[in-house]
Parts: sequence; structure tokens; C-alpha cells
Amino acid sequence: MSLDLAPSPFAPERFPDLPAIAGVRLAVAESGLKYAGRPDLLLAILARGTQAAGVFTRSATAAAPVLLCRESLRTTGGVARALVVNAGNANAFTGERGMETAWQTAVEAAGLLEADPEEVMVCSTGVIGEPFDAKALTRHFRDMLHGPEATWEQAARAIMTTDTYPKGAHAGGQVGGKPFHVIGIAKGSGMIAPNMATMLAYVFTDIEAPADLLQRLLNECVADTFNCITVDGDTSTNDTVLAFATGQGEARVREDMPEAVAAFREALHAVCHDLALQIVKDGEGISKFVTIRVKSAPDAAAARRIAMSIANSPLVKTAIAGEDPNWGRIVMAVGKAGVEVDQKRLKIWIGDQLVAENGAVAPDYDEAKAAEHMKGREIDIAVSVGEGGGEITVYTCDLTHAYIDINADYRS
Amino acid sequence: MSLDLAPSPFAPERFPDLPAIAGVRLAVAESGLKYAGRPDLLLAILARGTQAAGVFTRSATAAAPVLLCRESLRTTGGVARALVVNAGNANAFTGERGMETAWQTAVEAAGLLEADPEEVMVCSTGVIGEPFDAKALTRHFRDMLHGPEATWEQAARAIMTTDTYPKGAHAGGQVGGKPFHVIGIAKGSGMIAPNMATMLAYVFTDIEAPADLLQRLLNECVADTFNCITVDGDTSTNDTVLAFATGQGEARVREDMPEAVAAFREALHAVCHDLALQIVKDGEGISKFVTIRVKSAPDAAAARRIAMSIANSPLVKTAIAGEDPNWGRIVMAVGKAGVEVDQKRLKIWIGDQLVAENGAVAPDYDEAKAAEHMKGREIDIAVSVGEGGGEITVYTCDLTHAYIDINADYRS
Repeated sequence: MSLDLAPSPFAPERFPDLPAIAGVRLAVAESGLKYAGRPDLLLAILARGTQAAGVFTRSATAAAPVLLCRESLRTTGGVARALVVNAGNANAFTGERGMETAWQTAVEAAGLLEADPEEVMVCSTGVIGEPFDAKALTRHFRDMLHGPEATWEQAARAIMTTDTYPKGAHAGGQVGGKPFHVIGIAKGSGMIAPNMATMLAYVFTDIEAPADLLQRLLNECVADTFNCITVDGDTSTNDTVLAFATGQGEARVREDMPEAVAAFREALHAVCHDLALQIVKDGEGISKFVTIRVKSAPDAAAARRIAMSIANSPLVKTAIAGEDPNWGRIVMAVGKAGVEVDQKRLKIWIGDQLVAENGAVAPDYDEAKAAEHMKGREIDIAVSVGEGGGEITVYTCDLTHAYIDINADYRS
Repeated sequence: MSLDLAPSPFAPERFPDLPAIAGVRLAVAESGLKYAGRPDLLLAILARGTQAAGVFTRSATAAAPVLLCRESLRTTGGVARALVVNAGNANAFTGERGMETAWQTAVEAAGLLEADPEEVMVCSTGVIGEPFDAKALTRHFRDMLHGPEATWEQAARAIMTTDTYPKGAHAGGQVGGKPFHVIGIAKGSGMIAPNMATMLAYVFTDIEAPADLLQRLLNECVADTFNCITVDGDTSTNDTVLAFATGQGEARVREDMPEAVAAFREALHAVCHDLALQIVKDGEGISKFVTIRVKSAPDAAAARRIAMSIANSPLVKTAIAGEDPNWGRIVMAVGKAGVEVDQKRLKIWIGDQLVAENGAVAPDYDEAKAAEHMKGREIDIAVSVGEGGGEITVYTCDLTHAYIDINADYRS
């Protein structure tokens, strides 16, 4: 089926100009598996020796390709020769047959590339519970290998499901005067919640970096980017972030090179942050982009619980959709977060308006100004707990009629 | 403001016929605080010696009346002479002034009844964060004391906010040939989630029962009734269930009378269960009533987490609204519950159709039959985890456009 979704109001005017990454060759194809008339299959061929790292959904019902990628990275210690992504079918809850499909996909790609199947990362996104045959993907591989190269935009489009725009980001840097590039593409617009979401993100860099360093930096960057966004509090069976370092550029980084690590980490973080915000800004049915800052919570975990309780509250999200500075619902969401809070120390801001302090409405609170802020497209909510040093910033969107339209009809 | 809400499709044809409870006198009034043209203030006067028990929200931002009731019950050991409930203003996050309002309300009612202020239970529901003066309520008390008695239906209507119908229930029994009655009234249709919700429920019985027994039985009954319902996963600052035993009937119950305890517990449970389902069936924007059974989970807490993860998933709730037997979303919700699950042991049913087993779609699954079930008004979902003896049944509703309409516009 095809959904005619109105583009997100936050859709960028155009896809960014992204440079090529040495050692990465992209190809796309129409698999015919679900979507008609658009490429829905991505094959990224990676230079021999490419180092790889991954972060995956914590779902207890993780999909076959997630289980396979996790295992393959463990087996190889972090080496990859190819990435295969199909959109439209998640290959989740498909049992032994699903594992066979993921494995055969890797075997076929590996055969063409004279690589090991464990060096092929396989990812799927789309409907859950509908097994399919690997041939639906693998029959296209030879043409993809020998056909025209795809652009980053074509690659980003090929992995979309309910996304209304393709998502790409770029950051660069220098190590000892030698340049490197980090490019990322991502998809995801619903089923987005902490610990990953129906979210696929792929980051490619030409820097030469060992897999263990790549993994450590990816973990760190995911923690306050992809794991700080939520659309609906639902967590996918297929969430995956993979990073690939081809080592085909001039720059290199090792654990014992702190300046190089810092430069590379900064670029990697910038790309993850950019992609994470693009995912929220394409949140299903979004009309407002919401930033929630929590500070002085007892600890970081408490800050996260409070922020996510606000971000996932249907009553907060509908109030934002209704442009109502209904701060009582923020109080409610703080209260239900499962964190001990002293009401008298709690402070709440909407935009730059201090709304609540000393357990009640702030004396100088001007509701008209808060209402004005709520009319904007970007909404800022801040909470100070007054208990400690825990802080976090999370990003979400409002809950609108369009979310219902999309999800009452789309089978994802 | 006033909302013209379409009645829930589950609204009963009429309010049940409820007998009087000896020792309970009801009165209602129009406070003028928020709603125009309808009573929004309830005063229930209770016979001297009435024993009382309460269960309250676990919110860390509990409202002033909740804090007061909790403290008063502790002070008196469970004695009550009156109940005051106002609808339209929750007296939540109103600071010292809010505590003063709740206390003055109790003081005034107690003065008229020659009782202690701690013997007056005060409850509020409605908008958060708008302080009001106790006089808005207390100025009506004298007329209410001397004016006409209200019916149970009038009492149930006086405590409504976004409810589309008044909620009442009755059960009776006998102890040693002597009859007793249990009557309950309740309100609540949104912000409904475990550990209570914007939910107020009051249970009155003429049985003679000591407060500590009443409290124990109320705790037990709330656990699998009011704490097993959810509309939107949001938890209110004001949730309260109070039980009052006037002792003005012929029957009496004590801890050392097991048959009497069983008979009374059964009636108390029946009334709590009935009211809890009525609350869900008036869930904001409901079009489908959903029963979720989880069995053979590792333990009861795991069963609850899985059931509530399904019940609160926006993607599951919108699929139900769309009459789509999208069992993949149930798999997703099980996966994100934070419980270790072996996919291969998991079984999922929609209606009487076994949908999934052995980590994949069940061989005999007939989607047409599941789709037919989804067209009904009452939807049954069952999950077997295959890991242990934990089980639970929870009740919820779907997520519809009407929920958005109500909550993007109504300030609660």
C-alpha cells in the first residue's frame, strides 16, 4: 500500500549536499517486495578492511536481522564488507524462516564480494510478522553491483517507510592536517522511543579507526542523541545504528591519540545529533517540535525518567497540539515518573516563562506570553527538580490527528 | 468552558437503581467555581462512627486534598463523618494556599457536623494549578445540610468532569442471615493509568466493619480492579478511592469471621470491578473496549508490565481504532516491556484466533477471522509468555481522533 502523507512542516527544503566517502559504493533497487515504483533496497559496498560498530534495539522481540548483525559483529570483532537494507518488511517475528532469510541475504552478498557472510550487515524495516524469501532481495544484487552508483539521497530514500523526507547529515574534521568526513543517513518517524526506535541509521567515515574505538564512540554518541528522542514511546523490534570506518581517507585515529579521538568524536556526534533531530522532526503527524530539558534531578537516570514521562504523555502531547500552555499536565507527568520529587523545589518553564515554583503557579507567570510561545513551531519545556545534578535534554513532537490517521491505517 | 462530548458507545441506557445506605445522606450544589448550570459539589454526610479507608495516587505531585485525606486517615485511624468532592478544579500544585483551601473546607464541614476536621474527607478533580478559596465550596454547606437529599445518580453526576455518563454500582450480600449493601459511585475518563488515575471512586456500605479490615480489603480489591485499567497511561495528581462503612445496617464483619469477610469482600470487589470497567468504557474518545490477558509470565509484576505495555502502546491503540488485527504491534509492545521473553515460547491471540506461536505467525491463523473480531466493539487480546505463573487481566480502550479532540481543547 502507499500512503499519501503530507510532508512534515519541518522537512528541509532539500537534501544536503554530501561528499562521497572513499571506500563506500552505494546502489539501490526496487525489490518488488512491498512498495511499487520506488527503490526500497539499499546495498552499500564497503572497502576491504572496513571497521564496523553497532547499537541495537533492546527489545526482547528483536527481529532476525538485528539478531544476525549483533552476532556477526561479535564473530568478526567488527569488520564489514557490505550493508543491505530493505524497507517495507521488518523480517520481525518470523521465526526460523526469518533467520534463514537474513542469513541467505548475507551469504549471497558475501559470495559476490568474496567476503564472509558475517561481514554483511543486514537490516530490515516495515511490517512485522510476514516472512519473505531472501531471493526477493538477493536476485537484485548482481545488477546492483554492476549498475550505476546511487547518491546519498537515493540511498536515504530507499530505506524510508512512513518518513516524509530523506534524512542525511555530514560533518568533517581534520586530524594532524589530514581531513576526514562523516556521513550519515537515517529513517524513522514512528515507533520512536528511547533505546532506539523504528529507526535505522548508518554512519560512514573514511577515517581509519579500529572497531573497538568506533564502538565506544558510537555508544557514547547514541546515548544523548538517538536515545534521547521519542515520538510515541513505542520501541521497535528493528532499531539499528551502524557505523562504518573504511580507512580509505588520509586520516587515522587510535585510542592513544586524544586530539584525534576528540575531533572524530565531535564529528560523529554532530552527525548522530543531526539525524536524531531529523527523525523527530519527521515524527508521525508532527505539528510542533518539542525540546524538554530537565536539570537538577537526583541523578541522570531520574532526569531521563522525568523527561521521557513528559515527552511520552498523551495529555502533554495533545495539549501542545492544541497550543494550550497546560502546565498542570507537565506537573502530572513529573509526578507519575516514579521519581521522588519535592513539589516545593520544582520549577517549570514554558519557553522563557517561569510557570511554576514553590509548589504553585509563579507570581509573575504571564499566561498570554506562554500561550504565544505555544503558537510557535518549536516548543521549549524545562523542569528543574532542585534535588541534585542529573540533567538531560530530550526531543519529541506533539500528538495530532495525523498520527491517528497514519497509524490507524498503516500496517507497520 | 463546556464540552459537548458525544456519549460513549458503552454508556448504559440508564443509571442503575441503587438502594439507600443507612447512615449516608447525600447533597449536591452548584458551586459556581467552574461549571455553569450543573451541580459540581457533593457533600456526603456519614453517621457517627463510620469507619473509613482510602487508596490514593502514587504521584509525586499529589494534590492538596490527597495529602490531607491521607494524613487525616492516619490521624483518626480511619474515622469519617463527611465527604466533600468538587469537580472542575483539582486543587493540585496550588502550594500552601491549596493546603489551606482543603483544610478550611474540612474545618467548615466539621463545624456544622460537630466533628473533627480530620473526620472530613476532601477530594477535588479538574484543572491543575489554579488556586481557589475554600468559601467557593463552604458557602454552600449550610444549605446542603438542610436542603433536599440527593440521589446516587445526582451524586455521581456532581463529580463528573469529561465523563459522558454517571457511574454507579451496587452489590449486596448476607452475613449470618443479615443483609448488607455496598454502593459505589465514580468518575474518570482520561488520565487513567495504573496506581490510580484521574479517578475518584467512593464506596459506601452499611455493614459494620473496623477501619483496618476495611483498609485491607480495599487494598486487595483496588489491586485487580482500579489498578488494572488504563486509558492513556497518564496518572493523575488526585486519584482517590475511599470506602466508608457506616455500621448502620444489621450485618457486621470482623477479621475473625472468615465467612463474613469473604461475603463482604466479594461484594466490595464486585462494586470496584464494575466501577473500574465503567471508567474504561467512558475512556476519552473510546470506540472499542479492550481486554488484555497475560498469562504464564515470569511473575505477576512481569505480567503487569507486559499487559500495560500493550494497553498503553499508541501503535496498538491506533491499530485497534483502525480495526486492523496488526499483531506485529502486539509483538513490539511485548518486546519493549522490559521483561525477558523467549520469542519461541510466546503465544498471542486476537479474539479466539491463535495468531502467533513458535516465534512466527501461527500456521492456522485466519486473518479474516481476526479482522472480523476487530470490527466488534469489544476486543480481546491474550498473550502467553510461557515462562512462569504470573498472570493479569487489564482493561483499556482504543486511541481515536475523539481523544485528540477532547485533550487538545479541554484544560484538565
